[in-house]
Amino acid sequence: MSLALDPAAQDLLFRDAHTANTFTDEPVTEEQVQAIYDLVKFGPTAFNQTPLRVTLVRSPEARERLVQHMAEGNQAKTASAPLVAILAADNEFHEELPTLLPSFPQAKDVFFAERPVRESSATLNAALQAAYFIVGVRAAGLAAGPMTGFDAEGIRKEFLDDDHTPLIVVNIGKPGEGASYPRSPRLAYDQVVTTV
Amino acid sequence: MSLALDPAAQDLLFRDAHTANTFTDEPVTEEQVQAIYDLVKFGPTAFNQTPLRVTLVRSPEARERLVQHMAEGNQAKTASAPLVAILAADNEFHEELPTLLPSFPQAKDVFFAERPVRESSATLNAALQAAYFIVGVRAAGLAAGPMTGFDAEGIRKEFLDDDHTPLIVVNIGKPGEGASYPRSPRLAYDQVVTTV
Repeated sequence: MSLALDPAAQDLLFRDAHTANTFTDEPVTEEQVQAIYDLVKFGPTAFNQTPLRVTLVRSPEARERLVQHMAEGNQAKTASAPLVAILAADNEFHEELPTLLPSFPQAKDVFFAERPVRESSATLNAALQAAYFIVGVRAAGLAAGPMTGFDAEGIRKEFLDDDHTPLIVVNIGKPGEGASYPRSPRLAYDQVVTTV
Repeated sequence: MSLALDPAAQDLLFRDAHTANTFTDEPVTEEQVQAIYDLVKFGPTAFNQTPLRVTLVRSPEARERLVQHMAEGNQAKTASAPLVAILAADNEFHEELPTLLPSFPQAKDVFFAERPVRESSATLNAALQAAYFIVGVRAAGLAAGPMTGFDAEGIRKEFLDDDHTPLIVVNIGKPGEGASYPRSPRLAYDQVVTTV
């Protein structure tokens, strides 16, 4: 069974792509991040809520503040990656719904009047978008190093506010020497997929 | 700025792809789902935990049971899609970690001894994998119709168990007549991305 997607694209996005832990010095430009966003912004979310918000940590001073909140094993790579992005969920995404969902502008009040509902919806849908973003980084010919090992409350206070929940921090750049570990095993199809 | 990914692949996965609400009768085969899984299983997750579990609802009897738990606006399309998949998080994923992460088999006990920690990690990482799966459906030349409008507790009891959390139900098939709504607006880059 062959997929419709070109094999070279399969390799670029999934088969040859690996999480990178070291990077070359080559910078990641604003134009590259814009091109990534302009591709992955079309990925689907519930009610088109698109709650992902991205903080690009570029200045040396901000990078130093971020590194303090990373788990010890993530500090060196976060300090040295050409670009680091904090991917967060906007728990007040519903304010944009009248614009984002012109076919059903009442969704804001009908479904998302309560904060706990918004938080769980924002987390799920921003996580979908975080995955699209990782795919987009690879689509740009770059390597991603997504991390969840950090002090979320610390990053929220340092870079965001109470309305935003940091989900993933991603190192971005061209892979450096010994950038990736050997591929770990994956579960077999029958361990993951059940038919009823 | 052009991406490394071929423009045709960009179109297939993001730019021309739309959530489908109607489908043709053409079946989605087991081989297609296997090909999708064999591509997207490589998408990255924290500690390679890969907590996504997929239930393919194929029998008419099971389909009828599923439709009962869908929100009213999702019932007709869930009843008529060639294939429907329940995407769930396995909150006991840590049992597989010694196999999945041979470089650090202790992760199971060091990081995931507590159920609430596992649940939030499983939800986040299974959501990443749900997005890879949606991209994979499109890579197979099929359309996805992801939905979060359903009674999660009902689906859990009907098809899963207390260790699994249903996150998204996805209709899958070739798009039918009037399958998709007009593209809704997306946020501008500057509304989503901040640089510090």
